[in-house]
Amino acid sequence: MESMTKDDTVRLRKRHIGASCKLFFKHDPIKIVRAEGQYMYDEKDRPYLDCINNVAHVGHCHPTVVQAGVEQMSVLNTNSRFLHDNLVMCAKRLTSLFPSPLSVCFFVNSGSEANDLALRLARAHTKHHDVITVDHAYHGHVTSLIEISPYKFNLPGGGGKPDHVHVAPCPDSYRGKYRDTDHGLDELGRKYAEDVKHIIAKARGGGRNIAAFISESLQSCGGQVILPPGYLKNVYRYVREAGGVCIADEVQVGFGRVGKNWWAFQLQGEDVIPDICTVGKPMGNGHPVAAVITTPEVAQSFANTGVEYFNTYGGNPVSCAIANAVLDVIEKDNLREKATRIGNYLMNILRQLMDKHPIIGDIRGVGLFVGIDLVKDRESRDPATAEAQHIISRMKQEFILLSADGPHRNILKIKPPMVFSQKDADRVVTTLDEVLTEMKQSGIDILSDGSPKEGSVSPSERRKLIEDSIEDEPHGKKQKIIKDSDGIKI
Amino acid sequence: MESMTKDDTVRLRKRHIGASCKLFFKHDPIKIVRAEGQYMYDEKDRPYLDCINNVAHVGHCHPTVVQAGVEQMSVLNTNSRFLHDNLVMCAKRLTSLFPSPLSVCFFVNSGSEANDLALRLARAHTKHHDVITVDHAYHGHVTSLIEISPYKFNLPGGGGKPDHVHVAPCPDSYRGKYRDTDHGLDELGRKYAEDVKHIIAKARGGGRNIAAFISESLQSCGGQVILPPGYLKNVYRYVREAGGVCIADEVQVGFGRVGKNWWAFQLQGEDVIPDICTVGKPMGNGHPVAAVITTPEVAQSFANTGVEYFNTYGGNPVSCAIANAVLDVIEKDNLREKATRIGNYLMNILRQLMDKHPIIGDIRGVGLFVGIDLVKDRESRDPATAEAQHIISRMKQEFILLSADGPHRNILKIKPPMVFSQKDADRVVTTLDEVLTEMKQSGIDILSDGSPKEGSVSPSERRKLIEDSIEDEPHGKKQKIIKDSDGIKI
Repeated sequence: MESMTKDDTVRLRKRHIGASCKLFFKHDPIKIVRAEGQYMYDEKDRPYLDCINNVAHVGHCHPTVVQAGVEQMSVLNTNSRFLHDNLVMCAKRLTSLFPSPLSVCFFVNSGSEANDLALRLARAHTKHHDVITVDHAYHGHVTSLIEISPYKFNLPGGGGKPDHVHVAPCPDSYRGKYRDTDHGLDELGRKYAEDVKHIIAKARGGGRNIAAFISESLQSCGGQVILPPGYLKNVYRYVREAGGVCIADEVQVGFGRVGKNWWAFQLQGEDVIPDICTVGKPMGNGHPVAAVITTPEVAQSFANTGVEYFNTYGGNPVSCAIANAVLDVIEKDNLREKATRIGNYLMNILRQLMDKHPIIGDIRGVGLFVGIDLVKDRESRDPATAEAQHIISRMKQEFILLSADGPHRNILKIKPPMVFSQKDADRVVTTLDEVLTEMKQSGIDILSDGSPKEGSVSPSERRKLIEDSIEDEPHGKKQKIIKDSDGIKI
Repeated sequence: MESMTKDDTVRLRKRHIGASCKLFFKHDPIKIVRAEGQYMYDEKDRPYLDCINNVAHVGHCHPTVVQAGVEQMSVLNTNSRFLHDNLVMCAKRLTSLFPSPLSVCFFVNSGSEANDLALRLARAHTKHHDVITVDHAYHGHVTSLIEISPYKFNLPGGGGKPDHVHVAPCPDSYRGKYRDTDHGLDELGRKYAEDVKHIIAKARGGGRNIAAFISESLQSCGGQVILPPGYLKNVYRYVREAGGVCIADEVQVGFGRVGKNWWAFQLQGEDVIPDICTVGKPMGNGHPVAAVITTPEVAQSFANTGVEYFNTYGGNPVSCAIANAVLDVIEKDNLREKATRIGNYLMNILRQLMDKHPIIGDIRGVGLFVGIDLVKDRESRDPATAEAQHIISRMKQEFILLSADGPHRNILKIKPPMVFSQKDADRVVTTLDEVLTEMKQSGIDILSDGSPKEGSVSPSERRKLIEDSIEDEPHGKKQKIIKDSDGIKI
């Protein structure tokens, strides 16, 4: 429901919401009033095909999930110091999806709360403090996680790397330190893991001890990075030899998005089992619920501190009812099988575009977690950042929501609700083909500073396309808070 | 709804939920299956009068709040990078309840996320790092907040006080460093504030700079402490003179619980205005939503870092619909006026008990935030810890939920849903009177180690009463995780 004009929404937002909270499409943001499945509708009821909201995992407003939330809300919603069946059922079901010995849960409200708790568990268990994180990683917005998120702390105003944090090279076989052009995939996994081994040795040489290695099982904000085979197996061995524990951050990619497996760390092999796993975003299909799953030993070490862990809303009956319903839908609607099928189809037709469009440097992904790496040149692999922003603006005009990420913001991310269909895949790829063709034909060629070169598109049109680029970057431009105090008619 | 026996719920919980997550009443925990208003019902449909759940602010499952959540859930629930009217309306309404210049909001999922963000804002604005916190304070469960919560870090396994944290004496005029027996109330406010002044001077002398002073506007876990008049006014002046900002943590006590005012910091006078205020628990009546409210200047400093703040669920349309409905109900049902009326009535009849029961050392509170300070001796004010646990167990047997807190866990806390009635107050006080009388008559007298002395109650009965004490303490006993893997019939 819309209760005021879009202009008034924008004005109120500028006045009362911190400017650090960014909008998609700064210069012409979208007002969404309803959503269903893989579609979001604006105030004029125009449907946008949603390729970016991995949180709406089983589809926006899935009736089974809504029904579960609605029923529980009207009966009871209280904290987990009281016994409740939803909580223990959710824990039982969730842990049944993990390999042994991951059998103990802590319920929280967000991926950030989950990753913070994972660090507390790791430190309590190992009695160490330091953390190894992967370059370009993003693990959450609270203080302890900004500290281990190069995606944030490496920004000009980001605070820099603290002493207790050690950054391992991102095991990106396309544009990382070691590349598929020089090494086989297995070798890449070994080489990137050996870098972690060296980091551990150096840290210990400096009198520091490793509490944890944390990595997303597929790097999302870092640019849709698929870990090379053998990477986690080797890293986990090195970390454990140093007395540390291994944390798999599945907040973005868990719950079957990768298709074949429930969890993306499982792509690295059956013998790869973290000590702590964090899950979140898709877990509540939009509702704030997340969890930490760990071993009895790690949970016991935390309990041995004697300090209670109490999370006011974590694991409340409504959150757990919703999480249980999400699990139901994933299973009943065969969404994992679908993710594999549609994901493979999508990547296949995207790869066919590569012959026509040299700007596409790499198509990578697994299941419905797909990245399109745009390059200025396939040899140098220089990132085509401005072009990515242009494409996103044009796709938006065609009512398709895409975003770009990675350290150069040149990687188009596709991580739609899992109800995304073959027809949707066709539409995205056909439209992308048209936009890329139009860019070539109309002579739009973006300079490295983001401004368009002359061409057949009018200057004002071009400016709009560039200015309207998505704000989904870590380093938004400064926005001034409007300080007038006029009332807004609503 | 109950889907398994209580024993199975307990068994599953022991197996799959971290032992650090405590239950109320360890030895005979309550299973709650539904709740309404100020009543919670167990699996046998026995109603408990709820005197402790300040989160269920306008009453458990209030129909207006449920309806708002239900309607929005089925239409749209997505992140705040899209424009939405619920978000800006919630920000507009919330900020309208604060004195100028507190006009900018950040929406998050929990009080912990809010307080962590408050620290980030303070540090970005002041470019300082250190924090002054009040002794016995609890500000949340994430790493950065455990660091500023003496209630947690002072526990044996709590990690201790970090160097960047400075602890001010708790301005408790009943059992603090300066007491009402030696000083007038105004003098107490000045003296406790002067201690903060000295802490600042000492920190600066050591080359440290203060980013923030943070305090709950009424200390809750610390023992229902009412700040003496003039305290915040003076402290805020000293902190600002040192280049720091002032954070009011209203997570427990905000939204009109104190009656006269919307926010408890306002009890300290109209000229007392924090730079940052955090709100949470009651805001969603059980739903995970919280917020930080600050000045345009502080928000701008944060934006100037260029680092985006993105919170996946914070400020989503469902959370904001619910928060707006809570505000509606507080206003329409005159709950603030009711809090004053019933709170005063309750404290009045509690004070009448003091003549009969010397164990009651102090009755203090404002609105529906009331503490009963139990003492072994009114002169020494030695805390009657074991007695408090015994009373809580007995009240539970009478189907009244109370808890105890404070550093000695001797302060009975009453902070019920705001629909708590005069009849409820009568029932609590009458039952308390009976329990206290029974304790005297039956010769139950609790030794300082928590074990009961001989008396007319059978030893086994006594043991049960003691063992069954509430687990709402920061330092729960070690619990062993059951490692058997038998299936549980459900």
